[in-house]
Amino acid sequence: TFSRGIQTVTLIPGDGIGPEISTAVMKIFEAAKAPIQWEERNVTAIKGPGGRWMIPPEAKESMDKNKIGLKGPLKTPIAAGHPSMNLLLRKTFDLYANVRPCVSIEGYKTPYTDVDLVTIRENTEGEYSGIEHLIVDGVVQSIKLITEEASRRIAEYAFEYARNNQRTSVTAVHKANIMRMSDGLFLRKCREVAENYKDVKFTEMYLDTVCLNMVQDPSQFDVLVMPNLYGDILSDLCAGLIGGLGVTPSGNIGAHGVAIFESVHGTAPDIAGKDLANPTALLLSAVMMLRHMGLHGHAKKIETACFDTIREKKVLTKDLGGNSKCSEFTADICRRVQDMD
Amino acid sequence: TFSRGIQTVTLIPGDGIGPEISTAVMKIFEAAKAPIQWEERNVTAIKGPGGRWMIPPEAKESMDKNKIGLKGPLKTPIAAGHPSMNLLLRKTFDLYANVRPCVSIEGYKTPYTDVDLVTIRENTEGEYSGIEHLIVDGVVQSIKLITEEASRRIAEYAFEYARNNQRTSVTAVHKANIMRMSDGLFLRKCREVAENYKDVKFTEMYLDTVCLNMVQDPSQFDVLVMPNLYGDILSDLCAGLIGGLGVTPSGNIGAHGVAIFESVHGTAPDIAGKDLANPTALLLSAVMMLRHMGLHGHAKKIETACFDTIREKKVLTKDLGGNSKCSEFTADICRRVQDMD
Ligand SMILES: CC(C)[C@H](C(=O)O)[C@@H](O)C(=O)O
Ligand SMILES: CC(C)[C@H](C(=O)O)[C@@H](O)C(=O)O
Repeated sequence: TFSRGIQTVTLIPGDGIGPEISTAVMKIFEAAKAPIQWEERNVTAIKGPGGRWMIPPEAKESMDKNKIGLKGPLKTPIAAGHPSMNLLLRKTFDLYANVRPCVSIEGYKTPYTDVDLVTIRENTEGEYSGIEHLIVDGVVQSIKLITEEASRRIAEYAFEYARNNQRTSVTAVHKANIMRMSDGLFLRKCREVAENYKDVKFTEMYLDTVCLNMVQDPSQFDVLVMPNLYGDILSDLCAGLIGGLGVTPSGNIGAHGVAIFESVHGTAPDIAGKDLANPTALLLSAVMMLRHMGLHGHAKKIETACFDTIREKKVLTKDLGGNSKCSEFTADICRRVQDMD
Repeated sequence: TFSRGIQTVTLIPGDGIGPEISTAVMKIFEAAKAPIQWEERNVTAIKGPGGRWMIPPEAKESMDKNKIGLKGPLKTPIAAGHPSMNLLLRKTFDLYANVRPCVSIEGYKTPYTDVDLVTIRENTEGEYSGIEHLIVDGVVQSIKLITEEASRRIAEYAFEYARNNQRTSVTAVHKANIMRMSDGLFLRKCREVAENYKDVKFTEMYLDTVCLNMVQDPSQFDVLVMPNLYGDILSDLCAGLIGGLGVTPSGNIGAHGVAIFESVHGTAPDIAGKDLANPTALLLSAVMMLRHMGLHGHAKKIETACFDTIREKKVLTKDLGGNSKCSEFTADICRRVQDMD
């Protein structure tokens, strides 16, 4: 049948500029004849039984069926007690590894030219446990929870990633000099897992030292693995080195192939609907998704076209330094993709 | 008498290169006729009653009397359960504000030329509470403790600092979107205190966003105030922007004028005793100390001489890109200081 080999992906366009940049990605995928069909779903948090926040059943069912999702930006909830949808999605599908490759983009000038690293962030626990207490008036505690299982799982993911992506080293990022038990446990699991990957170099470094070395010479880093909050910080720092969240892809990976790829920039309500948005971060996230699905040829084609458009500097959106519209930028990439056939 | 106006400072030379760079500072102070006399003390942790770690009584008494200390690097303790002396000193004297000015140094090339900011870190609680538990096998928690009092105190310090140092804005750095109670409390206190400083602009920003913006354009930041761990990270990141810990001063400030100024780099055992160390970080920390003591003229003189030596690039230690010895670098600064008379 015609649908042989066509895979369905859950598309969560998101808010603000989300729909525009999703349309851009869909057009480019079509031009590249990527064997993907999209199932669009909205996710606004709803209250389930017992007052628990959950994502709408149609979105949940779609993801359960398709296993793979692509997601635009979601607006930060304003209602008190309303969870971040980004976090709720990570939690709902147990997407335990947050993967953000940061690679210098030729032609897009930043103070750094030789960034080529990947941050791998534990995505389910740590400082994001959500457990907090008021001890007495004026004294509050937040609990950082580290488990052996989640630490081993993310360490294994990082080493597997390094091995499968021709990367040579993994650095465990920690503050075990201060949080001796929690970061200590995380670090111990990294060391143990490292024993099984003798082909990958293993190093450990304090988070503060990583930050300092990172801004001095990012080329010294390869794969970095770390607890949740440190990953939140370091992934943004590294995105900054290559041009910001507008050009940085991201993937949230779970077990058994389940994954959601997302642009991690905001919804940019000020320019929403004006055909001014830059779809690069979502497009490069979609390229990560294609690789995750084994569609390496399509991934390479689209990625090359996107980087060519940026390098040539003729058709760029405003944030990239040009004055073209989102649709023009998209058309330029489509043209290149088609020319490759 | 001759000693009129001469103040005594506790000097903790420290380990590794500590003694050499302390000697350098003393020589430069002498050349500048700074009205300081030094009381040298060692700090190695000792076990007090009940097995509690404490600093030696001679060091404690000296600090209690003089109130002001200057400290070189201390080696990281290797014995399990042995505390970091840096942390023990901060705790012993309730040095609640960790202050690190980061200003681009003319002539010392980094990717950034216009850094001029100060990180102010809460130095007593947060993630550094030291409270950790094993919940069940393989599950560990660390407790981040935030109090109203310490949050208000550090916020007040930051605004006072801004006002007294001709700085125009204070940014509170937080993750109150995740740690709603703890960082929420910290942020609330910052907002409250800001109300009393209408002459200083107040903004708030997520830690991840600060890191991203910092590496893209550090010139947008002025005074930053934040909980303990975030300050540990951000102060190192910012030090990296201007050339690293070898050129970055630091002060730990307590109540009633008590303060310890310190270089925050390591002990560099590989070059210790070889007259190769760079005394800049300790010297600039000593300059901060002079300002803290109201000795602005001497501070300016020494600072200018140090920056002139670096800008002229003729007599630099190896880490600064030259091939001069520590003593030669020191002599060059002494000469300049004397020429100013
Ligand atoms: C939106 C926010 C809750 C999230 C986080 O803190 O993890 C974001 O910063 C990210 O990095 O994906
Ligand atoms: C030495 C270490 C315990 C310390 C810290 O983590 O605070 C250091 O990194 C610092 O920034 O002064």
